[in-house]
Amino acid sequence: MKNKIKILIAGGDMRQIFCAEKLSRKYDICVVGFDDEYITDRLSPYKNNSGSEKFDCVILPVMPFDEVGNINSPCFSGKLTTAKIYSMLKKNAVVFVGNDDKRIWEKFPETAVVNYMSREELCLKNAIPTAEGAVMTAIRELPVTLNGSSILIVGAGRIGTALTMILKGFGADVTLAVRNGRGVAKSRILGVKSVLTKEMGSDYALVFNTVPELIFDRERLFGFDKNTLFIDLASRPGGIDFDGAAELGRKVIWAQGLPGKTAPVTAGEFVAETVSGILDERSESCE
Amino acid sequence: MKNKIKILIAGGDMRQIFCAEKLSRKYDICVVGFDDEYITDRLSPYKNNSGSEKFDCVILPVMPFDEVGNINSPCFSGKLTTAKIYSMLKKNAVVFVGNDDKRIWEKFPETAVVNYMSREELCLKNAIPTAEGAVMTAIRELPVTLNGSSILIVGAGRIGTALTMILKGFGADVTLAVRNGRGVAKSRILGVKSVLTKEMGSDYALVFNTVPELIFDRERLFGFDKNTLFIDLASRPGGIDFDGAAELGRKVIWAQGLPGKTAPVTAGEFVAETVSGILDERSESCE
Amino acid sequence: MKNKIKILIAGGDMRQIFCAEKLSRKYDICVVGFDDEYITDRLSPYKNNSGSEKFDCVILPVMPFDEVGNINSPCFSGKLTTAKIYSMLKKNAVVFVGNDDKRIWEKFPETAVVNYMSREELCLKNAIPTAEGAVMTAIRELPVTLNGSSILIVGAGRIGTALTMILKGFGADVTLAVRNGRGVAKSRILGVKSVLTKEMGSDYALVFNTVPELIFDRERLFGFDKNTLFIDLASRPGGIDFDGAAELGRKVIWAQGLPGKTAPVTAGEFVAETVSGILDERSESCE
Amino acid sequence: MKNKIKILIAGGDMRQIFCAEKLSRKYDICVVGFDDEYITDRLSPYKNNSGSEKFDCVILPVMPFDEVGNINSPCFSGKLTTAKIYSMLKKNAVVFVGNDDKRIWEKFPETAVVNYMSREELCLKNAIPTAEGAVMTAIRELPVTLNGSSILIVGAGRIGTALTMILKGFGADVTLAVRNGRGVAKSRILGVKSVLTKEMGSDYALVFNTVPELIFDRERLFGFDKNTLFIDLASRPGGIDFDGAAELGRKVIWAQGLPGKTAPVTAGEFVAETVSGILDERSESCE
Repeated sequence: MKNKIKILIAGGDMRQIFCAEKLSRKYDICVVGFDDEYITDRLSPYKNNSGSEKFDCVILPVMPFDEVGNINSPCFSGKLTTAKIYSMLKKNAVVFVGNDDKRIWEKFPETAVVNYMSREELCLKNAIPTAEGAVMTAIRELPVTLNGSSILIVGAGRIGTALTMILKGFGADVTLAVRNGRGVAKSRILGVKSVLTKEMGSDYALVFNTVPELIFDRERLFGFDKNTLFIDLASRPGGIDFDGAAELGRKVIWAQGLPGKTAPVTAGEFVAETVSGILDERSESCE
Repeated sequence: MKNKIKILIAGGDMRQIFCAEKLSRKYDICVVGFDDEYITDRLSPYKNNSGSEKFDCVILPVMPFDEVGNINSPCFSGKLTTAKIYSMLKKNAVVFVGNDDKRIWEKFPETAVVNYMSREELCLKNAIPTAEGAVMTAIRELPVTLNGSSILIVGAGRIGTALTMILKGFGADVTLAVRNGRGVAKSRILGVKSVLTKEMGSDYALVFNTVPELIFDRERLFGFDKNTLFIDLASRPGGIDFDGAAELGRKVIWAQGLPGKTAPVTAGEFVAETVSGILDERSESCE
Repeated sequence: MKNKIKILIAGGDMRQIFCAEKLSRKYDICVVGFDDEYITDRLSPYKNNSGSEKFDCVILPVMPFDEVGNINSPCFSGKLTTAKIYSMLKKNAVVFVGNDDKRIWEKFPETAVVNYMSREELCLKNAIPTAEGAVMTAIRELPVTLNGSSILIVGAGRIGTALTMILKGFGADVTLAVRNGRGVAKSRILGVKSVLTKEMGSDYALVFNTVPELIFDRERLFGFDKNTLFIDLASRPGGIDFDGAAELGRKVIWAQGLPGKTAPVTAGEFVAETVSGILDERSESCE
Repeated sequence: MKNKIKILIAGGDMRQIFCAEKLSRKYDICVVGFDDEYITDRLSPYKNNSGSEKFDCVILPVMPFDEVGNINSPCFSGKLTTAKIYSMLKKNAVVFVGNDDKRIWEKFPETAVVNYMSREELCLKNAIPTAEGAVMTAIRELPVTLNGSSILIVGAGRIGTALTMILKGFGADVTLAVRNGRGVAKSRILGVKSVLTKEMGSDYALVFNTVPELIFDRERLFGFDKNTLFIDLASRPGGIDFDGAAELGRKVIWAQGLPGKTAPVTAGEFVAETVSGILDERSESCE
C-alpha cells in the first residue's frame, strides 16, 4: 500500500461526513451516499469520484446495512447497493465497518474486513462523548443540581472513569461501585469513594450504570427511592431490569449511541483517527 | 418575632413549592396560589390555612405581579389578589420578594420588604444551577465534545468561577477573560489561563459571557469563526450585540432564569435557606 | 515619568534577584546589596551602576531594615546604608517596600512610598506559593497520605481557596470552616463541604488555619486527637494557642513567609509584576 | 483455614507495625522483631506470643533478609533468625513477602509463599503515596511554583495517572508522554494533553519519569534546559542515564521506596488490606 491511499466513505450519518473531512487532510478521499445538502463546504470537492479509479479501502457506517441489505444511508435519497460499492474497490481492499455483521464477508469477498469499533483506542475515546451526553441528560432530567448530589457510578472502566472526572468538577458526591480490590484502588487514585457492587447502598439521587450485566434487578431497584434517576450506558442488554423498573415506577433512561448524537464532529474525527492509525500500522507491517 | 414563626407562601412556580417543603421542617407554613395537582405529597398538610390566624411573613415570587397587578400564580386557575394576601398578614409582617418592584411598597404598606435576590449568599448559590444549565446547553448545541475544546469565559465572578470549576472537570481548555491583575491572579488560583478582556483573541469554540456590559460588539463578533457558539449569561442587557450577531450569522444563545429551569428543587431550597437565614438574623437583632 | 524608567533594587534575599531579572526585560535596572556569588548570569550586566545617574524608584526588601537601621541585605558582606540609597534617587522618586514600617518616611523624605505587599493582586498571587508550601509541609509531616484523609481548612479566603483547589486534586476529604452563609455558598461553588466555624467538629487528620484570629483556643484543641496535625498560615498572632497546644501535646506548625521559601523565583516575579503594574498605573494617571 | 487465623508479623520497619495494627482488628496477631520503643500503644497487647501456639501465616518485610541472612529487623536490637520464625509456623503455613528472593523457598520449606508486592491491587494503591512523595520532592526542589509550570509525565500507567490527578489540582500545565494511541485516548479522558514519547519536546520545568526503560539518554537530556528538574520514579534501572545527566549538569532525583517514607501508616495499612484480601480469597477457594 503506497501513498497516496484512496479512501471511499460510503453512507452513514453526519459522523461519516466529519470523518471524511478529517481524512481528506491526509488521503485521497471520495464521499458517496449523501445528498448535496449534507455535504459540507470543506468536503464539496470530494463528492464526485474523479473517474474510473478504484479505492484502496472503504469506510462503511457503524451499522453497515439497512433492512433490505443495502448500505445504510439515511442522508441519501437514492439507493446505495453493496454491489456498487464493491465494484469501486481494488482487489484486496480494506473494508472498515463498526460491528461484526457476518454479511460483510459475503458481500465483500476477497477483502480485509476491519471492525474499527473493536479498537481499544476508539472505545477509550468514545467514552468521552458518551460521558458528556450522559451528564447532559442528567442535568436535564434531574430537578436538583449535580453539585452536592449523591451519585453512584457502577463500573470503574473507561466510561466510569470519564464520568468520574466530569462529575468531580461539578462538586458532586461521587461513589464508584466496583467489583474488587483493584477497583477500590483505582477509585482512590481517581480521588473518589468506592463500594463493592455487591454491598452497594441505595441512597443516591442519580445512578449511572456502565456494566453490561444485570446489576439492578427488581429486588435491588425496589430499595431505591422513587426519585432516583437511573441512566444506563451499558450496551445491550444493559444492566437494569427495565420491565421491573417500569412496574416499580423507577425512572430509567437507556442512553445509547451517545457519541454520534452528542458530538458528531468529534465522533467522526475519532473514527478518522482510528482508521488512519490502522492504515499506518498496516503500512509499517508491509515495509 | 417569637417562635414559631408563621410563613405564607403565595403564588409563583414550582420553585416556591420546593421552597415551602424545605421551610416546613422549621416553620409553620401555609401555601396559597396553587391548584391541587401542583401540591406535592409532602406539602399537602400545608395547603389549607388552619383558620383565621395571621402570618408573620409572606414569600412572594421572584416577579411578584402579573400584568393586571395580581400575584403572579402560573400554577393556579383562580385569582390571587394582593389585598387578599395583605389581609392575611400581621401588622409589621415581613414581605419577601425577588426584585425591587416599587409597587410592593404601595400594596403592602406598613410591612418590612426584603429582596431575597439581592443577598450575596443567594447570588453565590444561584451561580451553581446557572453554570450547570449553561454547560448542559453547550453540550447540546456544540457538535464537538467540551473535552479538548478551547473555551473562553468572560468574567471571573461568581458564575465565571462556577463555570471554571465544572469545565476543568470536562478536560476543556479554559481561558478566563478578566479586567485586571486581580482577575489574572484569581485565574491562577483557579488553575486556568487568563487574558485581559481588552486583549482577548477569537480562537474559541465556545464563549460564555457573564459580564452585563457590551463586551461583544459587532466588530469583535466579526473576528470570531462562524462556528463559535456564544452563550450569554449576563442579566439584561447582556454582553453581546444580538442584532449584530444575527446579521453576521454568529450563533448566540441568551440563557436567562437558568436556576429555576435547570434545578427547580435546588433553586427553591436556596430561597428557603436564604429566607431562613434572614429570619435568624432579624431574630438575633431583636433579642 | 517617561520611558525608560530607572529602577534600583537594593538589598533583600534571592527573591529580589529574581524580581530584578524579570524587571530587566522592561526597565533599566541596577542591583546593589548582593555579593557577586548571588548575582545570576542573567543579572550580571546590571550589577554596576553605569555612573552618576539617579533612579526613578527603588525596590526595598519586604522587611526593609536590619537591627541597626541599615537596609536588610543578608546576601551582602558589606553595609548598605539608607543614606547611600537615598543619595542614588531622583527627587520625588518612588520607594517600594513590603510593609508599613514608619521609619521609611523619615529616611526617605520627599519620596512617594508604596507598600507593594498591600496590593490585593499580590496577596492573591502569594496565596499560591503559600498553599504549595503548606501542602509540602503536610505531606512531609503526616504519616498518612493526603488522599483519603479528612482535612479541615479554616477560612474560605485567598489561601483557603488555593488550598482547596490543590487538596481536591489529592483526593482528600476537604471541609471548609466558614463564618456565614456566604462562605457556605462559596464552598459549594468550589465543590467541597463546609461547616460553620462555631459548629466545627474535631475529627480531622489535618487542619490548616488561615484566619488571623484565635480560632483554636485550649478548649477547642483539647477536643482534637493527639495525632491531628495543625498548620497555621495566618499572620501574627495566628489562630492557634501555641502554648496551650504545647501543653496538650498537639502538633502545631507555624508556617510563615512561605512564598519566599517555597518558590523564590515565582515570588520574586510576582513582586516584579506588581511593581510593574503600579508603575503603569502611575504613568497612566500622569498622562 | 478456619477462624480465627493467627498471623505473625516478623521484623521490618514501622510499616509492619502499622500493618499489624490494622490486622489486629480482624485477626489474632503477634509482633516480633521490634524493640519496645517501637511498639505503639495500640499494638502493645500483641507483642508477646501467648504461648506455644503456632501461626497460620507470617508477614515478612518487603526485603526479607539482612546481609547475613537473618530477617531484616532494623527496629530490633536482637537477632531474628529464619529458623526461629520457621519454628513458630504451622505446617503448610503461608509466608508473605514483598519480593521474589529465591532464598525464601529454601528457608521456609513446605509453606506457601506469596509475594504481596506483585498484587495489582497493592501496586495501584502504592501509586498514591509514590505520587504524593514525588510531588513533595518537586515542591521542595523547584524554585518556582507547580502552578503554571510546564510538567511532563512520562507514562500513563498507575503512577502517571496518580501524578496527573494531583498536578491538575495544582494548576500545573501537564503533558503526558505516551507510547501510542491508547495512551493518547487515556490522556484525553484524564483531561490533559499528550505527546508520543518518541516525539516529545524539551520545554518543561519538571519531568517525572515512571517508565522502567532508558527514555532519557544523554542525547535527549542534552536538549533540555539545565534548570529542568528530573524525578525518576521507575524501578531499577530507571529511565534516565544518571551518569550522562551528571556530566551534563542536569538535575536528577532518583526517588525510590516512597510509600514507606512518605506515608508509613498508609503504606502499612495497604499491606494489611492486601494480605487480608489474599486470605479471604484462599478461604473462599477452600470452601
